Amino acid sequence: MKQSTSGESKEFAEKDARDNYLKRVQETYEKYEETGVIEFPEWLYGAPKGDLFRVPVEDCPDFGETAMVEFDSGRTAFLSIDMQRDFCGENGYVDAMGYDLSRTQRAVQPISNVLEAVRRTDIDVVHTREGHKQDLSDAPFNKLLRSKMAGDGDGIGETPAGGVGPLLTREHENWDIIDELAPEPGEPVIDKPTKGAFANTNIGLVLERLGTTHLVIAGITTDVCVHTIMREANDRGYWCLLLKDATGATDDGNREAAIKQIKMQGGVFGWVSDSERFIEAVESGVA
Amino acid sequence: MKQSTSGESKEFAEKDARDNYLKRVQETYEKYEETGVIEFPEWLYGAPKGDLFRVPVEDCPDFGETAMVEFDSGRTAFLSIDMQRDFCGENGYVDAMGYDLSRTQRAVQPISNVLEAVRRTDIDVVHTREGHKQDLSDAPFNKLLRSKMAGDGDGIGETPAGGVGPLLTREHENWDIIDELAPEPGEPVIDKPTKGAFANTNIGLVLERLGTTHLVIAGITTDVCVHTIMREANDRGYWCLLLKDATGATDDGNREAAIKQIKMQGGVFGWVSDSERFIEAVESGVA
Amino acid sequence: MKQSTSGESKEFAEKDARDNYLKRVQETYEKYEETGVIEFPEWLYGAPKGDLFRVPVEDCPDFGETAMVEFDSGRTAFLSIDMQRDFCGENGYVDAMGYDLSRTQRAVQPISNVLEAVRRTDIDVVHTREGHKQDLSDAPFNKLLRSKMAGDGDGIGETPAGGVGPLLTREHENWDIIDELAPEPGEPVIDKPTKGAFANTNIGLVLERLGTTHLVIAGITTDVCVHTIMREANDRGYWCLLLKDATGATDDGNREAAIKQIKMQGGVFGWVSDSERFIEAVESGVA
Amino acid sequence: MKQSTSGESKEFAEKDARDNYLKRVQETYEKYEETGVIEFPEWLYGAPKGDLFRVPVEDCPDFGETAMVEFDSGRTAFLSIDMQRDFCGENGYVDAMGYDLSRTQRAVQPISNVLEAVRRTDIDVVHTREGHKQDLSDAPFNKLLRSKMAGDGDGIGETPAGGVGPLLTREHENWDIIDELAPEPGEPVIDKPTKGAFANTNIGLVLERLGTTHLVIAGITTDVCVHTIMREANDRGYWCLLLKDATGATDDGNREAAIKQIKMQGGVFGWVSDSERFIEAVESGVA
Repeated sequence: MKQSTSGESKEFAEKDARDNYLKRVQETYEKYEETGVIEFPEWLYGAPKGDLFRVPVEDCPDFGETAMVEFDSGRTAFLSIDMQRDFCGENGYVDAMGYDLSRTQRAVQPISNVLEAVRRTDIDVVHTREGHKQDLSDAPFNKLLRSKMAGDGDGIGETPAGGVGPLLTREHENWDIIDELAPEPGEPVIDKPTKGAFANTNIGLVLERLGTTHLVIAGITTDVCVHTIMREANDRGYWCLLLKDATGATDDGNREAAIKQIKMQGGVFGWVSDSERFIEAVESGVA
Repeated sequence: MKQSTSGESKEFAEKDARDNYLKRVQETYEKYEETGVIEFPEWLYGAPKGDLFRVPVEDCPDFGETAMVEFDSGRTAFLSIDMQRDFCGENGYVDAMGYDLSRTQRAVQPISNVLEAVRRTDIDVVHTREGHKQDLSDAPFNKLLRSKMAGDGDGIGETPAGGVGPLLTREHENWDIIDELAPEPGEPVIDKPTKGAFANTNIGLVLERLGTTHLVIAGITTDVCVHTIMREANDRGYWCLLLKDATGATDDGNREAAIKQIKMQGGVFGWVSDSERFIEAVESGVA
Repeated sequence: MKQSTSGESKEFAEKDARDNYLKRVQETYEKYEETGVIEFPEWLYGAPKGDLFRVPVEDCPDFGETAMVEFDSGRTAFLSIDMQRDFCGENGYVDAMGYDLSRTQRAVQPISNVLEAVRRTDIDVVHTREGHKQDLSDAPFNKLLRSKMAGDGDGIGETPAGGVGPLLTREHENWDIIDELAPEPGEPVIDKPTKGAFANTNIGLVLERLGTTHLVIAGITTDVCVHTIMREANDRGYWCLLLKDATGATDDGNREAAIKQIKMQGGVFGWVSDSERFIEAVESGVA
Repeated sequence: MKQSTSGESKEFAEKDARDNYLKRVQETYEKYEETGVIEFPEWLYGAPKGDLFRVPVEDCPDFGETAMVEFDSGRTAFLSIDMQRDFCGENGYVDAMGYDLSRTQRAVQPISNVLEAVRRTDIDVVHTREGHKQDLSDAPFNKLLRSKMAGDGDGIGETPAGGVGPLLTREHENWDIIDELAPEPGEPVIDKPTKGAFANTNIGLVLERLGTTHLVIAGITTDVCVHTIMREANDRGYWCLLLKDATGATDDGNREAAIKQIKMQGGVFGWVSDSERFIEAVESGVA
């Protein structure tokens, strides 16, 4: 800073922001071409706060299997999305609509594995939970109506035959996160009335306070809440990584397509990896 | 209002908001079961400002081909998303990444037909345009980097060989909406630096000023910007209808899946119809 | 709609949006010049859903004491802001910082009067409550630090000597709304981690579901939360009215200034009235 | 990270987030009590990216004149708000309403001095500009109407007698930033249709891309746009500092009150300093 004649200061003095910025992109791109590694951008976020680790990601154009994305553990949060009984448990919302529960339950074990790994590190864990207030004041009319049509008469806010409480309604047993993946003390839980998580909740403040720049994403359902949140986060500049086996959907074709959609245009919403490769990366570090 | 003893006032006096609200849902649901029509909710938005018209929508659960959704022309906006050279023209962004342009161009004629129809009515038309400021100050680093990887070295802000300007950069020829679908004077255009349109633009103000409650959505690409905007709008309570033939994507499988994803859970992001059925509905009205 | 040849349709056919829009402004302005009444804009929102009523507002430029703003009871919400023990009760946040409680308590009786009046009508009531989650995950570090400096060592999340719970922390007695102004069942309560209410909560969805276009605002403190919320709502297009006597602040000069600031530029954040005039307007209606 | 037995990792392993967080607050508070310096929180944002510098701030409770806030030049942006002809030039919006221009012009020289100082450093400069699109599609009806009432018949979008263009309308001469404070190439300019800057623009993306955590705020008018933006930024977790002499308002009392309002509750919206002390701090650094 201050009247310095160093290259850094001259660069800013010239104020040729666009070219300087593209030069940063070019440098990172060239390193990646050489090494297969997309480095953590220290010039942007500063020196690592935790440890660096590199996760292999899928299908990056023009380089086969070797692309690695570098994360700073001190700026990474693992986001476990909507692992609630309503989405993967008996007599919850998804069950009431008649979908096969095994399709959403497939995410449980991989997420459990990831939680076990990251809880030993300084990677933060954040959970989300979809649900409406008791008075349904935050539930749009069209959402209630469509859920009723899908549920053959039993919609959000109503208790289906055999149900344990009104669907997608806060504080009820069916609404809570399943025991296997329950938040530990100190892991923030975001309550959201929507498929996405950013427009109507405090998640922005929570991630700001954690200093998060990179999000590792898992949960259910792949094509609905998981995808909406990944799109929102990507549009706000977060670096997003989906762990594909740690997600499930009500329809397998939709799940596969949701994963593929991310990978278009060089990763239009982020990158895709899986729980095993992520855990291995976390456990081995950059060294 | 005011100490009245009418049923309406007593209803509010009892303040049993949840049950009253679910009763509204139940009434609309029952009418739909009887008639196959999802009525415009006057109790919520007030009496129609324009004319009512009914659009047939696809695959509503449990009723076959006859479901109709009722719109108020005075509260409806047609949203034409990102019909820019960069997404469907030669030497634009999508072309530079090597995708087949016919896949995005398929949306042009249907949108043109819809525009012709709605411009004769009081349905509003709103356009969106993705692009970054000249200095790229609103382009996240990871977005630039990934576009460069996808473009084999030429990314957002750079002009590829044969290109007509820097990709996805405002005020350049490649960035503008194609001539066939150009906005007419008085049709708002939303400039967005993102896939979505709500988080970083003035679209909320524009729709508020138009008094819009229902959005009819078309454009490119189906699984990226169109879907992100539909998800954002749905999460904010808008009634959304996708005209499926009036959208295109860089991959046909992703396009088909994006359409199917909307229809899960009774229409998890809204409803799906097509340009012909929509135009016919607009032209015939409720009568 | 539909190829009609009525004036309305031609107007839209011409698509001269700007001039048509300014013409609407001109018409409303001229009526106001003639009658002193700013009419409810039916052309924008539609026919009234409830009853119209007219509230006298202060200091409108160039017309003395007679300006009246017209509201539709069916699209109006009364917003009671942060009437919590932490802001007006003993051993709460404001008390811990050493401010005189009578300054914030002055709002209690006027709000109580307004609640009594509007609960007999179809005007909605919405409450807000400032507070942080138990883990303080939604409390910015600088906010905690400054509260500690102001509280002479006891800040947000900590229990001061004689306190009934950690300051501004959810679910504790000091955090809740005072008994006199407690929400009735069915009145939405917005929990916010901020001074404002729009950026990090579901209030947008709640007001959308209520169909609210006009907000009548009261609460504490005038220059902090009340003003921030009024500014946010005004920026989103809501018609805002402050009931000045139904607000209080930690400093009387700040309170007076906050009221005056609203009235600059013809009402830069809305209008100002008081509880008595508002109640009288509600009770007498337009007739 | 990773099974480490260091204190840092154990701390996270215990997941006692609340107490750990309050401990951080306590440590920073105690250092401040000892030294009068509020340190840049490296634990939260990481090591400095630029140079540290310390700015004296006003009226911190319980310590007199010696409170200093530490900034990282690499994470600081100077925000110059709405220094447009419409707010401080002849025949612009503020002039048309009849306010004394010297009240807003007082901010010009101090801002010019700050710009000169910070442009020699790596502190970023961001400008904002209030204005509406040509078609006024992003101007709420009530805003137009009130501006017309304040302007005695000439409102936003209209050209007053002697005016150089329609008031607060983009691309017109009166709307642009005054020559003395014109943005240099590479300094982002945020175009906003509102008093605030966060809800309807891309400023979030711009600050994310700059890596900004601390905002130094100046411009016009103190109680309207400057205050609204400071409130919004503060609610999103930014550390905000107002340079009081580098702001102006249409009314001196409102300006003074706006400054005082910031300083309540230990700095409820941030801190207050002035251009001279800020420039001196920038030029001397921490050393």
